[in-house]
Amino acid sequence: MDIHEKSINTIKALAAQSVANAKSGHTGSAISAAPMLYALFNDHLNFLPTNPNYAGRDRFVMSAGHVSALLYSILHVFGYDIKIDDLKNFRNYGSKTPGHPEYRVAPGVETTTGPLGQGVANAVGMAIAETMLAAKFNTKDISLFNNYTYCYCGDGCLMEGVAMEACSLAGTLNLNKLVLLYEDNNITIDGARTIANAEDTALKFRAMGWEVIVVRNGNDYYSCSKAISMAKRSSAPTIIIFKTTIGIGTALEGQNKIHAHPLSDDELKDFLKKLGIKKPFYVDAEIVNNVAKQIIKNTKKAQKWHENLKKYATKYPEQYKLLNNLSSVKKFNYEKLLQKLNKLGSVSGRDLSSLVLNELSKTYTELIGGAADLVASTKAVIDDGEFYSIKLRGGKNVHFGIREHAMGAISNGMSLYQKQPVFDSTFLIFSNYMLPAIRSRAMMKLPVVSIFTHDSINIGQDGPTHQPIESLTILRSIPDYTVFRPATAAEIIAGYKTFFEKRIPLALALTKSNLPVFEQSTIEDAERGGYIIFESKAKPKIEIFATGTEVELAISVAKELSSFGARVISMPCESIFASQDSAYKNKILSSNAAIKVAIEASNDNVWYKYIGENGILINVTDYQCSGPGNEVYKKAGFDKDVILSQIAKQIKALKI
Amino acid sequence: MDIHEKSINTIKALAAQSVANAKSGHTGSAISAAPMLYALFNDHLNFLPTNPNYAGRDRFVMSAGHVSALLYSILHVFGYDIKIDDLKNFRNYGSKTPGHPEYRVAPGVETTTGPLGQGVANAVGMAIAETMLAAKFNTKDISLFNNYTYCYCGDGCLMEGVAMEACSLAGTLNLNKLVLLYEDNNITIDGARTIANAEDTALKFRAMGWEVIVVRNGNDYYSCSKAISMAKRSSAPTIIIFKTTIGIGTALEGQNKIHAHPLSDDELKDFLKKLGIKKPFYVDAEIVNNVAKQIIKNTKKAQKWHENLKKYATKYPEQYKLLNNLSSVKKFNYEKLLQKLNKLGSVSGRDLSSLVLNELSKTYTELIGGAADLVASTKAVIDDGEFYSIKLRGGKNVHFGIREHAMGAISNGMSLYQKQPVFDSTFLIFSNYMLPAIRSRAMMKLPVVSIFTHDSINIGQDGPTHQPIESLTILRSIPDYTVFRPATAAEIIAGYKTFFEKRIPLALALTKSNLPVFEQSTIEDAERGGYIIFESKAKPKIEIFATGTEVELAISVAKELSSFGARVISMPCESIFASQDSAYKNKILSSNAAIKVAIEASNDNVWYKYIGENGILINVTDYQCSGPGNEVYKKAGFDKDVILSQIAKQIKALKI
Repeated sequence: MDIHEKSINTIKALAAQSVANAKSGHTGSAISAAPMLYALFNDHLNFLPTNPNYAGRDRFVMSAGHVSALLYSILHVFGYDIKIDDLKNFRNYGSKTPGHPEYRVAPGVETTTGPLGQGVANAVGMAIAETMLAAKFNTKDISLFNNYTYCYCGDGCLMEGVAMEACSLAGTLNLNKLVLLYEDNNITIDGARTIANAEDTALKFRAMGWEVIVVRNGNDYYSCSKAISMAKRSSAPTIIIFKTTIGIGTALEGQNKIHAHPLSDDELKDFLKKLGIKKPFYVDAEIVNNVAKQIIKNTKKAQKWHENLKKYATKYPEQYKLLNNLSSVKKFNYEKLLQKLNKLGSVSGRDLSSLVLNELSKTYTELIGGAADLVASTKAVIDDGEFYSIKLRGGKNVHFGIREHAMGAISNGMSLYQKQPVFDSTFLIFSNYMLPAIRSRAMMKLPVVSIFTHDSINIGQDGPTHQPIESLTILRSIPDYTVFRPATAAEIIAGYKTFFEKRIPLALALTKSNLPVFEQSTIEDAERGGYIIFESKAKPKIEIFATGTEVELAISVAKELSSFGARVISMPCESIFASQDSAYKNKILSSNAAIKVAIEASNDNVWYKYIGENGILINVTDYQCSGPGNEVYKKAGFDKDVILSQIAKQIKALKI
Repeated sequence: MDIHEKSINTIKALAAQSVANAKSGHTGSAISAAPMLYALFNDHLNFLPTNPNYAGRDRFVMSAGHVSALLYSILHVFGYDIKIDDLKNFRNYGSKTPGHPEYRVAPGVETTTGPLGQGVANAVGMAIAETMLAAKFNTKDISLFNNYTYCYCGDGCLMEGVAMEACSLAGTLNLNKLVLLYEDNNITIDGARTIANAEDTALKFRAMGWEVIVVRNGNDYYSCSKAISMAKRSSAPTIIIFKTTIGIGTALEGQNKIHAHPLSDDELKDFLKKLGIKKPFYVDAEIVNNVAKQIIKNTKKAQKWHENLKKYATKYPEQYKLLNNLSSVKKFNYEKLLQKLNKLGSVSGRDLSSLVLNELSKTYTELIGGAADLVASTKAVIDDGEFYSIKLRGGKNVHFGIREHAMGAISNGMSLYQKQPVFDSTFLIFSNYMLPAIRSRAMMKLPVVSIFTHDSINIGQDGPTHQPIESLTILRSIPDYTVFRPATAAEIIAGYKTFFEKRIPLALALTKSNLPVFEQSTIEDAERGGYIIFESKAKPKIEIFATGTEVELAISVAKELSSFGARVISMPCESIFASQDSAYKNKILSSNAAIKVAIEASNDNVWYKYIGENGILINVTDYQCSGPGNEVYKKAGFDKDVILSQIAKQIKALKI
């Protein structure tokens, strides 16, 4: 048994023991993918356990996140700060080694995975960002960005639409430093892969412009390593198809049962014996010494990279400054921009957004992003940023194609690469195509802003398939996700300001229709999530909550109720308002309003939190007809007189 | 100009006029796809305008729903009940001709489309259902199910992951009577198709097991018709790639601008002149007479089919009865089943669901469905139904593969085919991959039940990527969608009963963990959405709402509060409860509870509707750790003592 086989066996043993010890997890591929990932780490991957996030490193994404036990075992063997105790703690509450790899929880985990296909698209995003930053920063003499992006995946990932969308784009953009390590074990949870997928994967990838390499024996280290060498030299994105036997060496090898089966004590004993492993959870010094060679090599590379960076700092100080500020908050005169916008008069939300985005992109020159074939509609484009392509790697705008889901996940990857801010964009309704990607983004707290336009039923004639009735409810429900639905230019600016300053995942729900100018709407107020935008002279007995287009309507209603006293609270971002201190909240919320009303062209129940069981909720709970926007809007009840009559009834009932 | 060219020109003119008249809509493909769709309707499609839904018809799906003006124009010319006035009314409020084709609104519209890719997957579902019913009902002498499924799509549909997933499955299952009519005009909204998609579509489809036919001149009727003839003879699913020039004949032909551009008066005038059209919105008698030939031919086919059906009724009375009852509500002894289940003691939600599904499938023998590679986990399988495959078209269970989104949209198509009930299944969290398909299903009110298991954070060690924190909020937010989260066997049965009797799109959120037996939980109560499951002897001052696993917890809390008077309302389905009459609601909801509590392992704000601004909401709003389920659950606050102490505080504050 040579040192490589010994190392691989040790890794297999660690992974199988981690799962068996936790009595939970996925043994199958954690064993069969060990050789290919060992070959990657030992011979190819430019990684640095002592400084896992240094910018010159290669990226490795484990898209099939359920194979986490293998990742943690490899990270342990290759010197990362994952100890044997962490492996023993696999899947325990609060451990460094959760069931699926979580970004920021363990070193060496480049992205959170688990929901299949996401990692593949993240890797495509990282590869795009690499070429962008290379074009932006590399000079003739100094190359700072020049890394490979590797992604491990299984059948599951490659059946998912999000991965297929991303791979199609990767081929189109010829991301030649992207290498997909596909473990083809021909087994899924329910049986042989072919029961649900009989396609010719190699041919399919060729059709998408990829290079294809097949490794007949994926359990053979030498073949694996050779294939990766070849992939690195490829002039196109490359998929290596490693033929393996799932759970190889166990009693259940080659069977679907081994997929998520923790080995029993006896099974584990037999398996370890077969591998020649004598001590539990143990790595022999010989193995440590061997991997040290690669770590030393990589450390030298990193030293060289840092020396280069130093030279770069001297020779290209301006560029160096930019590079150091990829993820920093920058000074920007938001007030000045607001004054400029307010002078334009009534402008649509999407147009205001475009103006703000473009102004900000001059300060945040690292901003990159794109839309899903709707640039003309959502206006989410950096006008002087050009379009990214094979020929123009410096382009800032990506044509994602009609691939909303991949757009979301690729944007995540672009942002993960060097933490720069990213935007993506489509109609608000089609955020539902992107949801799993948005959720991953929220979980990772990535600075990606989604520019969603056509934000309510008043989009009109495209009809119910395009009416985002529940979109606000859905987006607001994602934990750690921030949603702005602005009513004014100030609120749009506040949304962008929040994004750029807090660097959090955020969505803007923007109108296609024109927004009025409200001078009383300030950025500072809007940044607090909710504020009083109108108040009659009389002490308010009627309190109206509204967002977006409904704020203007709410004010028109409130004006008619001035004799009773009425207040309108514009709430562009409920979650931020909810997080304010009680002093602020008490200032905004009327303590003695007898009638509480919320107006929003959505079906979000969050308003009950403010208006209570007896409040009047003017919303939209069902699909509306296709028809002219204002007609649809009015017929759905968003009409001053209709709302006033509802309020009048309650005024009468309560004898106000 | 021959009659075909004349007809096509008339159709092009009608479509362009519809859009121009509405000043809204999509002119581009409504012109360039006219020849292929005319060829389909005139020479191949077995349709019947006088009885558009007869079972023997071919199915035609317009996946690129924005090309609706063309569909309506063709339906008008081919004798459907779409009048010239309907075309003039295109995109008007309440018209028969909404912006995107809507199922049940216009005859000849087989499915609602607009969100791209959905229609392709619907068509795959229809083609699957056709083979299933053929296997079930066709005899040696009488073939009742033997139709083609045609689907028109553009670049947009084929870039979408949902379509790619569905096409991969269609190839695997070799659905040879499925024909995809792909209009390859090389243009998307943002420019040339190749800016975002340079793949070799033909090769990609071959890799997926499809037959590929290319039509170089998609504007030539004869080539189009010939290609469709070839496709019909194919032994595999077939894609015909029609090369076209978008908006051909208009001043903007071949440009992306024409995609959604209504022609101006002058542009329209020029275009009609070029086509040789003299009267606006007019179909020449010659054209009507010509298409009549195909209608007569199809009418004869339909007569033959109905004669066959008559023979079938006599010769196979049992089968005939089944056939007539594909979509009927059937007698089933739900109470007896409940008694049986309650005797089992504590059983998990997923296992109870499996038992109910299997019992019901013996009565509802038309039930078909499947899971996304999670049969062993979600237990959503008809045990004696076998698995559907090329060799076993009579199988009732479909291996959808790891393709949740396509599963959702294919299930829609399976249900659309002959209105039979369908189930699909995955983990609750992965409902977010299926959302656009679920929304389409809800919009169409299709009888598809989703069996979602692993329904809360207590799934444990799979961690935050698998925790369905917001899934209930999201699913409940979809208009016309019904969500059950059952706490007992009776509630699970009530969920299935509601599905089978109301025939509505419905989701079951089921536990992986065991549910206790509550004898006081009845099917009848549960069917009303919410009911009192526990009440202390004292008049209730404390009212607790709960669902699913939290009902047991709520009861244990309430028992401790018996001295104050406590009531627990189990609310398996809030939307159904909300739709009850006020008499029932008043009976269930306490009018004088001073303290209102809701306990649910979700972040749904719907509970504020019941507990008001001052209620106590025990829920989960953030991602939790990976760890043993009960530990995660407890640490998130789902703990009797923690909840009691929160209530105690309020008891003190309110001096109860």
